[in-house]
Amino acid sequence: MELDAILERSCERDWQTTPAESVDTLRVAVIGLGWFTRGRALPALEGSGYCEPTVLVSGSAEKARSVVAETDSATHGISYDDFHDGVASDAYDAVYIVTPNALHLDYVRTAAELGKAVLCEKPAERSSERAAKLVETCETHDVPLMIAYRMHTEPAVRRARDVIDAGLIGDPQAVRGSMSQRLLDRINDDPDQWRLDENVAGGGALFDLGVYPLNTARFLLGSDPVAACGRTKRSHDAFDEVDETVSFTVEFPDDVYASCFASHNARQESEIVVTGTEGQVAVRPAFFQDQARSIHVSRGAGRASVELEVVDQMLEEFDYFAHQVRTGDEILADGTHGLVDMQAMEAVYESERTDGWVALD
Amino acid sequence: MELDAILERSCERDWQTTPAESVDTLRVAVIGLGWFTRGRALPALEGSGYCEPTVLVSGSAEKARSVVAETDSATHGISYDDFHDGVASDAYDAVYIVTPNALHLDYVRTAAELGKAVLCEKPAERSSERAAKLVETCETHDVPLMIAYRMHTEPAVRRARDVIDAGLIGDPQAVRGSMSQRLLDRINDDPDQWRLDENVAGGGALFDLGVYPLNTARFLLGSDPVAACGRTKRSHDAFDEVDETVSFTVEFPDDVYASCFASHNARQESEIVVTGTEGQVAVRPAFFQDQARSIHVSRGAGRASVELEVVDQMLEEFDYFAHQVRTGDEILADGTHGLVDMQAMEAVYESERTDGWVALD
Repeated sequence: MELDAILERSCERDWQTTPAESVDTLRVAVIGLGWFTRGRALPALEGSGYCEPTVLVSGSAEKARSVVAETDSATHGISYDDFHDGVASDAYDAVYIVTPNALHLDYVRTAAELGKAVLCEKPAERSSERAAKLVETCETHDVPLMIAYRMHTEPAVRRARDVIDAGLIGDPQAVRGSMSQRLLDRINDDPDQWRLDENVAGGGALFDLGVYPLNTARFLLGSDPVAACGRTKRSHDAFDEVDETVSFTVEFPDDVYASCFASHNARQESEIVVTGTEGQVAVRPAFFQDQARSIHVSRGAGRASVELEVVDQMLEEFDYFAHQVRTGDEILADGTHGLVDMQAMEAVYESERTDGWVALD
Repeated sequence: MELDAILERSCERDWQTTPAESVDTLRVAVIGLGWFTRGRALPALEGSGYCEPTVLVSGSAEKARSVVAETDSATHGISYDDFHDGVASDAYDAVYIVTPNALHLDYVRTAAELGKAVLCEKPAERSSERAAKLVETCETHDVPLMIAYRMHTEPAVRRARDVIDAGLIGDPQAVRGSMSQRLLDRINDDPDQWRLDENVAGGGALFDLGVYPLNTARFLLGSDPVAACGRTKRSHDAFDEVDETVSFTVEFPDDVYASCFASHNARQESEIVVTGTEGQVAVRPAFFQDQARSIHVSRGAGRASVELEVVDQMLEEFDYFAHQVRTGDEILADGTHGLVDMQAMEAVYESERTDGWVALD
């Protein structure tokens, strides 16, 4: 496959084998109604051809019902306790869990027991131990589980992978990736934000942002980390429990290293770059939503930059999840896939304590 | 100082305090007449306002004389042995050493004994032990010594530093830098190239290329490394003695980390990026000669890219060296400065052996 063919595919959904009309719409219970859910997830779910939000779950049933009133397809607004009690469980086929990290497992347990497919926000949980239980729970109850890595269905990232898979950059020699933002600018009115609470979040910039270059490197290389090494940085008092900034390196098979940077206290920017023996492919900007993404391919003496149409990344992700659940096709970002990131990120933290590389099993 | 002022300076030589007409032209003996000298260095020296090549030194006096015949200002073509014997020493004020790394010290010794100023190619020597002797020799004989870091006088890099020094990106949080090329494409007709010989080169991609992002990170941050950690990669038989590819991280004060990549077996590319709390500055492409360099500055909601005129980096470097020698102004890239890079790069190699971070004194 050559460059022109790859670019022609542009935003094509190469994972989509079955049109939405041919499968039953997946009815989704959305657990957690924070700003991200209301601003990003619900609009995308409402726009989806493969799924729809039917049940909304929040700390208070009253809040849930007020959001239901603004959401066309939603029929039930219930509390977290209601959810655990199985209220309205006939009204949904799957759950989308968008709560703080340390709460994922509890909701996954209930959903799995109810036989619902699960789409769980990343990182999978606050620790690999809990993430492993999450995976085990879904396996025990034989329900599909996907960790919500929206880069897997971002067209620019998929086309970058096509470029690599077509051999256009030769053998990958190294990856670099970064993601940073100024978190405190966003949460000035909420100093108790759960992302700053180690018990609830499990980690800081690494868990929230570093997981993007890490996971996208895995996706682009088509392989998993074998070791990790990194250091964190804290300069602001708000980050007394979790890492504000992290620089880490992940070793992949064949001595390919991914150098990553993530920060909750740096100018917003993101990129992922794979350099090979013959060429290089970069997605820049890479990870934040609503940005026009460009793929930059260099090879021989030439460089090409292609800007793709902006897609709704949440819509792509929801459609993929529902499509795979309905068709029974394999979900790439399954629980085991998500667990690998948890283990790699914990290895980064451990490497800071041991001052050296930490091998992954 | 604001962005517009910085960009207005563009290719301005802010280090230049004294015009060429006000000082005596520095007469330079050039030691080593390989392709780099003939293709890059001699044309730049001939174009310089502050210096001129007068004595050319090579393995054979005959070869040296043939190059002299093509070089207007050159008066003497001598052999390496002649040089050590002090032949034509009245015809030059300074030496430019562009031999394989492990030979630097011998020529520096002779030059220092002759009381000549020294411009020595980077890395300073094949090891920090020999580099330290090189520095000591120049101190003993009280001759100026500069290690040839052409990035110090590259306008794009200097303007990037202005951006940082002006506070436009806030506090630097991380650096990333990379430099790669396909060395074997260049030296197919010379499989015994000294760069592949550990005894002569001391190191591979790290010493040849990794020193660029490392040293430029130091220049931009205005500080020196405190620890290093890295891993190398070899995939081609030609690199049985020296590293083909290296991924390394250098710790700077205040937990600022520079993630660097260098390869002799990857598509040619280079960049250096400093991300701060308030903004980001990148020079892309960064390190290869004859490329139009752009400075990319982002801050707040804005991004600016400015392409600078292409300068002859060798000419800028030679003029700087001669200017500082003639005016007596401080040379930033002195021997001690170069020694720090040697120690940091050796720490990277040691870190691979010890599988962890190596502190620098």
